[in-house]
Amino acid sequence: MNKGRLIVFSAPSGCGKGTMLAEILKDNSFRCSVSTTTREPRKGEIDGVHYYFISKEEFQRRIANDEFMEYAEYCQNSYGTLKSEVDQYLESGINVILEIEVQGAMKMREIRPDALFVFIAPPSVDELRRRLNKRGTETPEIIEQRIEAAVNELKFMPKYDYIIVNDALEDAVSDFFAVIRSEQLTVSAQAEFIEEVIKNA
Amino acid sequence: MNKGRLIVFSAPSGCGKGTMLAEILKDNSFRCSVSTTTREPRKGEIDGVHYYFISKEEFQRRIANDEFMEYAEYCQNSYGTLKSEVDQYLESGINVILEIEVQGAMKMREIRPDALFVFIAPPSVDELRRRLNKRGTETPEIIEQRIEAAVNELKFMPKYDYIIVNDALEDAVSDFFAVIRSEQLTVSAQAEFIEEVIKNA
Repeated sequence: MNKGRLIVFSAPSGCGKGTMLAEILKDNSFRCSVSTTTREPRKGEIDGVHYYFISKEEFQRRIANDEFMEYAEYCQNSYGTLKSEVDQYLESGINVILEIEVQGAMKMREIRPDALFVFIAPPSVDELRRRLNKRGTETPEIIEQRIEAAVNELKFMPKYDYIIVNDALEDAVSDFFAVIRSEQLTVSAQAEFIEEVIKNA
Repeated sequence: MNKGRLIVFSAPSGCGKGTMLAEILKDNSFRCSVSTTTREPRKGEIDGVHYYFISKEEFQRRIANDEFMEYAEYCQNSYGTLKSEVDQYLESGINVILEIEVQGAMKMREIRPDALFVFIAPPSVDELRRRLNKRGTETPEIIEQRIEAAVNELKFMPKYDYIIVNDALEDAVSDFFAVIRSEQLTVSAQAEFIEEVIKNA
């Protein structure tokens, strides 16, 4: 059986990342890694689904135990990805998606060069603005802040492996699966098959 | 509009290359390059479909005119690929498939590093033998010669970009399309989009 692939998945807000992931996860060979955090659960958040909620002491103990693949501090809370959330699944043939923002992704480039880096982009910044306005849930100031954050994130696109434009959800999801399948067909991914065929020839 | 992609497509005999190509060519964004030859047409071969049949003098004139991307001699006949069979189609967004054997493919690596190299493999050499026997059209000696030729070709697999195992036709064709789509989503293929989005941000 083939090992799973670690996939770093980034998208600015308004790019439909959530709906894309929901579609992708209908395929049982994919799972999203669950992050661990020291912050308090928000209303509706479930331990083990949205995050693993642990105490600051427990977080420190796990750092000391070298249990994290990566971790960082935001607003006085710690967030991290446990190695156990990733490697055991990859070994059993499951593709593990790490949904992280661009800075974290760049860190991952160094820690896990075996990962696949996929960026979900809007068709254009104008379209992104239109989508964020359409939601109608944020003030114009907040929307402009989000646009600015998105533009900063878009500048990291050249550092990823693949860019998928989420114009129509169905196409974007099918593009994602094409990328994953294609990566399984590269000569390096097929090294074992090649060796086997030639050996038994 | 995006340019088409040049695809070098190789497969040993018995790998179902013909049926795969027939399926792929149902998609109008793909075409097979038609080779030019000085040999006589065989029964049922149509000029401009199976080959362009031209005289030895005409072939020499075209070599002198630098009209060939590549050409070679086999059994006192010349075979070649006209540049006009490739570049004008790529420019108009058509993906051009060059169906060539491994030696020719290795030459193409040098001439056209922009091409995508796809190898169609049998699930195993045993399965290849079974398929060739099943046809029942060749003598055991001919079959063994073909197996030997196939084994030699399989040794070139590591020099290709992608290996598609043709076990079930439908899966192999869908794998081929996944590879082509995925290549359109790489950061290098998306360079124009990235520039555009960032510029207009």
